[in-house]
Amino acid sequence: MSEKRTELDELGEFGLIDKLTAPFTTHVSNTIKGVGDDAAVISISDQEVMLVTTDLLLEGVHFNLMYTPLMHLGYKAVMVNLSDIFAMNGTAQQITVSFAVSNRFPLEALEELYAGIKKACDYYKVDLVGGDTSSSLSGLVISISAIGRANKSEVVYRSGAKENDLLVVSGDLGGAYMGLQLLEREKEVFKANPSMQPDLEGNDYLLERQLKPEARQDIIHFLKELEVKPTSMIDVSDGLASEIFHLSKASKLGCTIYDEKIPIDAKTAMAALDFNMDPVTCALNGGEDYELLFTISMEDYDKIKGNPHMTVIGHMTDLNSGINLVDKNGALIPLKAQGWKN
Amino acid sequence: MSEKRTELDELGEFGLIDKLTAPFTTHVSNTIKGVGDDAAVISISDQEVMLVTTDLLLEGVHFNLMYTPLMHLGYKAVMVNLSDIFAMNGTAQQITVSFAVSNRFPLEALEELYAGIKKACDYYKVDLVGGDTSSSLSGLVISISAIGRANKSEVVYRSGAKENDLLVVSGDLGGAYMGLQLLEREKEVFKANPSMQPDLEGNDYLLERQLKPEARQDIIHFLKELEVKPTSMIDVSDGLASEIFHLSKASKLGCTIYDEKIPIDAKTAMAALDFNMDPVTCALNGGEDYELLFTISMEDYDKIKGNPHMTVIGHMTDLNSGINLVDKNGALIPLKAQGWKN
Repeated sequence: MSEKRTELDELGEFGLIDKLTAPFTTHVSNTIKGVGDDAAVISISDQEVMLVTTDLLLEGVHFNLMYTPLMHLGYKAVMVNLSDIFAMNGTAQQITVSFAVSNRFPLEALEELYAGIKKACDYYKVDLVGGDTSSSLSGLVISISAIGRANKSEVVYRSGAKENDLLVVSGDLGGAYMGLQLLEREKEVFKANPSMQPDLEGNDYLLERQLKPEARQDIIHFLKELEVKPTSMIDVSDGLASEIFHLSKASKLGCTIYDEKIPIDAKTAMAALDFNMDPVTCALNGGEDYELLFTISMEDYDKIKGNPHMTVIGHMTDLNSGINLVDKNGALIPLKAQGWKN
Repeated sequence: MSEKRTELDELGEFGLIDKLTAPFTTHVSNTIKGVGDDAAVISISDQEVMLVTTDLLLEGVHFNLMYTPLMHLGYKAVMVNLSDIFAMNGTAQQITVSFAVSNRFPLEALEELYAGIKKACDYYKVDLVGGDTSSSLSGLVISISAIGRANKSEVVYRSGAKENDLLVVSGDLGGAYMGLQLLEREKEVFKANPSMQPDLEGNDYLLERQLKPEARQDIIHFLKELEVKPTSMIDVSDGLASEIFHLSKASKLGCTIYDEKIPIDAKTAMAALDFNMDPVTCALNGGEDYELLFTISMEDYDKIKGNPHMTVIGHMTDLNSGINLVDKNGALIPLKAQGWKN
């Protein structure tokens, strides 16, 4: 190893991936898209492609077993992978599940985890086809890969947005993050006084956004019915701001979004205010919403106008205009990307 | 969660997988083979299938960074996955690589890891197409999935062996295990006296078996050239005994192997004796050899007879005869399966 030492924090997650994967070349002609989108795209026939995505989840980094029921964890672990397949406009078909556990876990705990995995498989109609099992010296580690399919002509990449395309997001944002804040707060209360009962009443929506989110397969279906093919798409896993940067970078464009257009549920906004947080900041940087962020041609606007599941939040601009947020007073504020995220 | 507590050690790895995956049903018609072979088999056309396999590797469980160079670790991590694709008689084409690290790792360490991954990709002509990156609170975690292809008629399952088929193994066994013993011994010496230089001279073969094994793609090619299609196949990752149990169980047969036929390199045998171990036990239970174990029809025997890369070590019997080892004195000893393995 060389003497030089570059700290990972200097690079951020995406800088690190770019650095590590840059030297790789392609050997196989059926590899259509490798690293750099929600899923890899592999040609399997003249008409069809296979989509492959994978996620690694670690106890203490991605989830806390103090407040995450194992069944919910299993469900969500599958869901986050399916979300990546949907973000390519594909149909999810198979998953593999690997896990490592210490022997402090009894079989019954793993059965809970797998009950959640099965629930997700049954709901989304995907098959569990493999995995790996290992002992762990520390916490629970889960690695899931998902395999999907799509017609070649239907695949939507991050890179397809055109100038003036509208930027659209499904559902509402920031809820999963506020759910996490509530759970973290109750954890601290419980640690200080274990006899206290958790006070989570009235927060079902936010807790569900955090603990049992759903991947937006329905949006893919809605768009097909409306005959709208997005020009680019990504799922909102790391926060809206980060995903806007990915879409813009891949499409070599700028983007302008409007503060007031960002869909935020009233419960999210109220919880944010309760925590002295700005709801828009929570929506921009919170993450784990698993909504879909996509661009559509202006011509398709009438088809989605008034649709309760989709909100136009801005539009794509030329690259030199940069990535900007228009605030309530009409001021243009350059949007900041996030750094290293789990 | 129920009150019952079943310890994982009671079940063993394969018992655990059976228990957890039993409730799952199939939703997608193109899933040909799910859990229970070296790789999942997914139909992609009338003629072709895709093969998918995955492995999870944890620092302190599967590797020790005190004596495993990161470049070798990267190479081996890819290789163990490709070995599973070859064990289905397939061609490896793509991999995804996920990892979690603590920030004690500098970029340069990960570049070493990825240099090894790239070396394996270049040598085996596979493409890196995706992955996930995360921080880790404890050690390094690596999760790799491999994707391969095969003609439907060429896929070899664990379950295809027939009574009287010959059991054949490639290369030689037990070397990787003895390499590990040498490295562990030197680690203890170093811990006791850090000024001591490691004494590993003359053990290149065993160290290479442990640190830089090769998946036996060549055997797949040899067999094609010889026009031998194995009736069943598995790769030797957990030790010969364990793999014989898998093949026999999947094929619903018994098996008899001959102690004296098990291919053991002289260096392995000498190292075993040096450690007061029985070389045959090391070959049976050592693991990590990444050789291929397969069965062939008696009719094909002449085609592989005398081939220096393959050794006939026994034959398949009816189920009721059980799984037995014939020792040097001709005595029949029931073979024991291993329990929980990493």
